[in-house]
Amino acid sequence: MTKIARTAKGSSDQDPVGVIRELRLLLGDRIRTDADIRETHAGDASYHKPMLPDAVVFPASNEDVSKIVKLCTRYRTPVVPYGTGTAVEGGIVAVRGGVCIDLSRMNRILRIGKADLDATVEAGVTRKQLNRHLAETGTGLYFPVDPGADASLGGMTATRASGSAAVGYGTMRENVLGLTAILADGSIIQAGGRARKSSAGYDLAHLFVGSEGTLGVITEVTLKLARIPEAVSAAVCAFPDISSAVNAVMEMTSAGIEMARIELLDEVQMGAINVYSGFDYKVAPTLFFEFHGSASSVAERVAAVRPVADRHGGEDFRKATGQRERDRLWQARYDAYFASQTMRPGSVGYVTDVCVPVSRLADCILRTKEELNASTLIAPLFGHVGDGNFHVVFLIDPECPEELAEAREFGERIVEFALEMGGTCTGEHGIGIGKLAALEQEHGEGVKVMRAIKKALDPLDIMNPGKVVKI
Amino acid sequence: MTKIARTAKGSSDQDPVGVIRELRLLLGDRIRTDADIRETHAGDASYHKPMLPDAVVFPASNEDVSKIVKLCTRYRTPVVPYGTGTAVEGGIVAVRGGVCIDLSRMNRILRIGKADLDATVEAGVTRKQLNRHLAETGTGLYFPVDPGADASLGGMTATRASGSAAVGYGTMRENVLGLTAILADGSIIQAGGRARKSSAGYDLAHLFVGSEGTLGVITEVTLKLARIPEAVSAAVCAFPDISSAVNAVMEMTSAGIEMARIELLDEVQMGAINVYSGFDYKVAPTLFFEFHGSASSVAERVAAVRPVADRHGGEDFRKATGQRERDRLWQARYDAYFASQTMRPGSVGYVTDVCVPVSRLADCILRTKEELNASTLIAPLFGHVGDGNFHVVFLIDPECPEELAEAREFGERIVEFALEMGGTCTGEHGIGIGKLAALEQEHGEGVKVMRAIKKALDPLDIMNPGKVVKI
Repeated sequence: MTKIARTAKGSSDQDPVGVIRELRLLLGDRIRTDADIRETHAGDASYHKPMLPDAVVFPASNEDVSKIVKLCTRYRTPVVPYGTGTAVEGGIVAVRGGVCIDLSRMNRILRIGKADLDATVEAGVTRKQLNRHLAETGTGLYFPVDPGADASLGGMTATRASGSAAVGYGTMRENVLGLTAILADGSIIQAGGRARKSSAGYDLAHLFVGSEGTLGVITEVTLKLARIPEAVSAAVCAFPDISSAVNAVMEMTSAGIEMARIELLDEVQMGAINVYSGFDYKVAPTLFFEFHGSASSVAERVAAVRPVADRHGGEDFRKATGQRERDRLWQARYDAYFASQTMRPGSVGYVTDVCVPVSRLADCILRTKEELNASTLIAPLFGHVGDGNFHVVFLIDPECPEELAEAREFGERIVEFALEMGGTCTGEHGIGIGKLAALEQEHGEGVKVMRAIKKALDPLDIMNPGKVVKI
Repeated sequence: MTKIARTAKGSSDQDPVGVIRELRLLLGDRIRTDADIRETHAGDASYHKPMLPDAVVFPASNEDVSKIVKLCTRYRTPVVPYGTGTAVEGGIVAVRGGVCIDLSRMNRILRIGKADLDATVEAGVTRKQLNRHLAETGTGLYFPVDPGADASLGGMTATRASGSAAVGYGTMRENVLGLTAILADGSIIQAGGRARKSSAGYDLAHLFVGSEGTLGVITEVTLKLARIPEAVSAAVCAFPDISSAVNAVMEMTSAGIEMARIELLDEVQMGAINVYSGFDYKVAPTLFFEFHGSASSVAERVAAVRPVADRHGGEDFRKATGQRERDRLWQARYDAYFASQTMRPGSVGYVTDVCVPVSRLADCILRTKEELNASTLIAPLFGHVGDGNFHVVFLIDPECPEELAEAREFGERIVEFALEMGGTCTGEHGIGIGKLAALEQEHGEGVKVMRAIKKALDPLDIMNPGKVVKI
């Protein structure tokens, strides 16, 4: 790991010694201050410069978290919630040092509501852990939101994550029914609940979904579950050029063909995947599809998609109905990020994340590709095109500021024209420390409201300070 | 109309004269202070005692609303947004007088996004107006959220309304993509947007959905639209008793049979409907179904529902596939509220609105029926049982405080055991002035957070004061 900066203001504006002493009395060996642990909690999966927290704590209950936050408030010490560290906008970087709350020991599945298709879990439970449990206990249910990484469900809630299945099942916004959060004053609140709908006051659950730990620490989440579909079918189809692929997507979505997943990978990405996973896919812009439903409805949808693909020059249309076949096919998609890394060993990824109305997707992606052609950087493009969301991953040399500057400038340009098209600067990665300026660009006056809410709930600015909105 | 109380503190804590003079300069004849207009804006469709606003204004633009709110802030005058007055928890009752903002002249459909299945409308557009427009312009799209009344889309957003199609299409929470709101300081903010998903900061759109005008005035809404289904089929089925009907619902929902609507009407309600609309339905607990999708998937679903109904003693199963037939069948359901009114001419309705996890619906409804049997009041029961939401309508004599007291006490008991079952005090009607105590019961500490947010955004408490949370 490259040398990690002692947080700039880490020790200047608070006294970590006092709070650490008290936390040790409270937590015993569940507080760690040794370098290696602090380093593993200093950065996320992105280019953002890691910064060390002063200590890492491992609470086991809401009460632990409440006491920890109360102490941090008393000592004016920043609190940084940590799930699995798999996010990419620096949301867990300890920009002002403080106490990193690692929720991995709060990993109990508290309740499965088989008849209600819901579950309540502690924040540290990962999505794969939950899905394993649902499979092993024969519920016939699963949690469909799939960001790729085996992220914690608390972290996914905090960043309003989504991923490839959002077009069919929605994002964390649509799949969180309720949650428990610990506020800066240590109070434990329940937001939302188990009822499928409610008009009982302000929607605090949705306020906390996507708040990135800046309003409170999310410790428990109640999630909607989905029934494992009776039938699943997947398909892959290559296109002569990216605009044909995207136009096909736009025609399929506006025709209302229900898809569980529809993913685009550009030719650069496909080339990387073939090398990385030994596939023999055509090195061309490619769509990956998945359809869920009854046997007949799935067959109907595949039949409806095929002619649209053909009309747009789709070729090499491969269907996969068997589980193994499907897994192998999707493996290619899941490998995308790692495959791209191998195109430039030692590089780190700078990932863009714009999302536009689907009717503008072709404009947005073509404009992006034009700009990419002018760039010197290696940058595959892939995304969740059914939602209008796509990523460009710039593979940059962490030691080369010029490359980061070029990627950043490029990212800012993409955001600019995505906003002109009625889109958002981030479809699923969040603001963290990477998109503070973009948020101002996108929401202007709205950011003042966000700031007012942040001040009202966290007047001392200790809850993951410096993220989402600076106050 | 029964005599309307001059608002208790109406003139005591502010000077309406000054603000009215200035509003007149701003709005000319678009401010009205005559008794008849104030009276038609004093109360909603419920038992709640109407209270007169000091004036009613008719803005035509965001800028009008911004200027109106700024003036009201300067004069510390309450602002009460008004859509169609069809809500039932007193949300538009001018408990402290002030200026009622009638949004009916902000009724322009600003944009239809055919390819993106979305629309942006001014707050005064009603759902039927939007659906007429979508039909007349041959979009093949419609807005599915259906609370029964032809409410304004701004009002439906403000109360987080839903109705009979929520089980298939979600509530306003799931169908509002973005909105424009005018805050107490007159600032005009855009929350959310047109992208299908976003992780850009706090979810202000969902904070405003259901805020009942207490955080700001919603003036524009961007909505998801649905495609008119290829096939629609409806059915009605009577059951020997209410528990059989509800158990059938629970089995159907947990079996994952996709339904666009599934409504329960009890025997009291069915009797009323037969009299009111000249139907010959069996006077027994009855389920109304509607299925949307492709011809084959609809057929599949009807075929899946039938045996479940049979297993639970369902009889007199009537299918309706033709439009006319369906309309006639659903007319019975739509007439429910008015039909029940005729059971006791001159009465007003006190409506309960609990919503519980569907697995507890039988317990909750049976418990409710037991209590009803002990009551002297006429009170039909019906509801959106696919979501776990149902209503009891007490037909009370507006001049008889004892009856209101009995209904209230009953309503409080239902809320108590619904909360014990993991439910909510209101599935779709909102808090208004009728459920302030229930909200405290349901969310406890969470209400402190709501209050903190209210204070942060409306420090002078002029935005629809006395509703949702008192500060």
